[in-house]
Amino acid sequence: MNPKSFSFKLHSVDPSGARRGTMQTPHGKIETPIFMPVGTAAAMKALTVQQLKDTKTQIVLSNAYHLNNQPGADMVEKFGGLHKFMGWDGPMLTDSGGYQVFSLPGKVIDDDGVTFKYAKGGKSTRLSPEISIDIQNRLGADIIMAFDECVEFPATYEYTKRSLKVTSEWARRCKAAHKREDQALFGISQGGLYKDLREEGLKPLIDLDLPGYAVGGLSVGEGLDNMKMALDFTTHMMPVNKPRYLMGIGTPEDILEAVERGIDMMDCVMPTKYARSATLFTNVGKLRLTNREFRNDKFQLDTGCSCYTCENFTRAYLHHLYTSNEILGAILGSIHNVSFYIELMTRSRKAIEEKRFSSFKQDFLALYNRKVKSKKPKKKR
Amino acid sequence: MNPKSFSFKLHSVDPSGARRGTMQTPHGKIETPIFMPVGTAAAMKALTVQQLKDTKTQIVLSNAYHLNNQPGADMVEKFGGLHKFMGWDGPMLTDSGGYQVFSLPGKVIDDDGVTFKYAKGGKSTRLSPEISIDIQNRLGADIIMAFDECVEFPATYEYTKRSLKVTSEWARRCKAAHKREDQALFGISQGGLYKDLREEGLKPLIDLDLPGYAVGGLSVGEGLDNMKMALDFTTHMMPVNKPRYLMGIGTPEDILEAVERGIDMMDCVMPTKYARSATLFTNVGKLRLTNREFRNDKFQLDTGCSCYTCENFTRAYLHHLYTSNEILGAILGSIHNVSFYIELMTRSRKAIEEKRFSSFKQDFLALYNRKVKSKKPKKKR
Repeated sequence: MNPKSFSFKLHSVDPSGARRGTMQTPHGKIETPIFMPVGTAAAMKALTVQQLKDTKTQIVLSNAYHLNNQPGADMVEKFGGLHKFMGWDGPMLTDSGGYQVFSLPGKVIDDDGVTFKYAKGGKSTRLSPEISIDIQNRLGADIIMAFDECVEFPATYEYTKRSLKVTSEWARRCKAAHKREDQALFGISQGGLYKDLREEGLKPLIDLDLPGYAVGGLSVGEGLDNMKMALDFTTHMMPVNKPRYLMGIGTPEDILEAVERGIDMMDCVMPTKYARSATLFTNVGKLRLTNREFRNDKFQLDTGCSCYTCENFTRAYLHHLYTSNEILGAILGSIHNVSFYIELMTRSRKAIEEKRFSSFKQDFLALYNRKVKSKKPKKKR
Repeated sequence: MNPKSFSFKLHSVDPSGARRGTMQTPHGKIETPIFMPVGTAAAMKALTVQQLKDTKTQIVLSNAYHLNNQPGADMVEKFGGLHKFMGWDGPMLTDSGGYQVFSLPGKVIDDDGVTFKYAKGGKSTRLSPEISIDIQNRLGADIIMAFDECVEFPATYEYTKRSLKVTSEWARRCKAAHKREDQALFGISQGGLYKDLREEGLKPLIDLDLPGYAVGGLSVGEGLDNMKMALDFTTHMMPVNKPRYLMGIGTPEDILEAVERGIDMMDCVMPTKYARSATLFTNVGKLRLTNREFRNDKFQLDTGCSCYTCENFTRAYLHHLYTSNEILGAILGSIHNVSFYIELMTRSRKAIEEKRFSSFKQDFLALYNRKVKSKKPKKKR
């Protein structure tokens, strides 16, 4: 079932391979490439919807695995769906729970699905393609994901090959089970770091003619070079006129490398998670705000950033908040980190439009990595 | 030293004794009676300054004891004072640290001051009237408090009487040490629950002609009836044309009883502290949002409340946030609880202006306490 109200238009491709497009969803337009902040349990950690809107976030990600456990998909459905429940009226995407379930110890996999106990609360549960899609239909996000087997890293060629059959059969069943024309079901490519398996896995997914495709099974510990290698051969096999989503990525470096390889969408808990532990992203690299060097620092966190945090507070104040364990530290840090990621994508889109993405990436990374490099000599003294 | 830029005008007194006034400070006007949310460590717990402004908070309280420990009064001064450091440009009040120091175990009191170790970090420190005023001068709040001995409850008549001498001598020394004409130094009445000691203690403070006076030594476990009794005789002894501040109060009931007894200002950590543990104030009483009864509750938290939380989210969503330990629960709860307290004062001021404060108080409390009463029969079944 192809959704009525979902479309993707590819505007241009930069010489590097980076793509500039627009997605249309029932809850609004998304300019790509885009980073999607993660609000796992129908809540962005430490941010209100208003604050999230102020960061210019276009689309929010949530998770079927967590929401089915608490408060339950039925409950969310009764409240008019995820958008109404959490008060976010923009585009939304839910993950299928595949990644979460396959990360659990003690899961039992059969051809039909997976039986497992929830890490939180211990409730015994079953997920299958049909159940995951039913949950996601009830949650009502604009984009929903196929229930796949996310293969761990490292995995043997043989295991990865066998698992592809499960993933493609499950993708077929997901499409068959999907009931809502206002939701776009994306397929997920697996195949690990094996080029021929990525090709073998993508073929049946492409045959399903889904409205978008994700690259799964990366960001599982394989490292940046392996990720780049896998993307180098995988994105070329993906349909040109459909959005490409790299799941669970990542650092600012990861994101720029992925965009250069033709990825349109990414998500990660990193900006909010790091913000809660006082690590904040800036154009001159990551700063750990609890460090004593910031105690007297009168500068704004990130020169040139115009987020609420940077416009109103000094690094010294943020240092004070983090070292005093004030919740406000996590709030102001999350506002900045999410804004930083969103702004990175805004700048990326502009660079693609102006056909200068590679030089933008190089310039960004030169500045971003400078601080780390300049610190090394100090340690040797 | 009387401040140049501080004034208080009493507009009217309701038949009940409740007062309606306006305070002028260097950072703006304050309509009284007023509740002051507490941002102990130069930060409102779980709220940004922007969110605090949205609650219509007029004045914020901070604390010399905590700020002198971290980040240090010198640091705050270097950053242009507390207003600039924390980004709050409205009126502000700092407490002297007296209450905190006298609550510490292992403190050593002499005529000149108190030696103690900070509960956080264990730094050995000394506070005296001169040191506390110096700290508060550096912090730069619009209203600062005398350094007094806050007598514990219960305390004997003899101990309370002896301690009054310390408090009045220290008030004199505070006034002598105070160096900034743009800050109003308030005196603090002690004397426990003893009418003659309250009178004896107030006299030398009134002779100092300070711009405002606080009632200290209440909200230390004496209970509502004792507090009402003490206020009944204390406020009548206080200057009519100067603001009266009841320190550390309290519940909505406490606040209305205090206002009726001629109190103009109050502060308490209760709205933000309770919000972090899922207890939210509403016009029908306190609700504990983790309770299962709210799991499916489609109503807004408090009918008629127009705060961001009430306008946008259901009780079921708040229940979900609190039971999922999402920081957003504390944030949305704090927005509501502070808004609730601020709105209670707005309605109180209107009732005073219309000379109907007692009936307003009765109506409010009848509704506020109804829920608790209606629950009792259920328990008996």
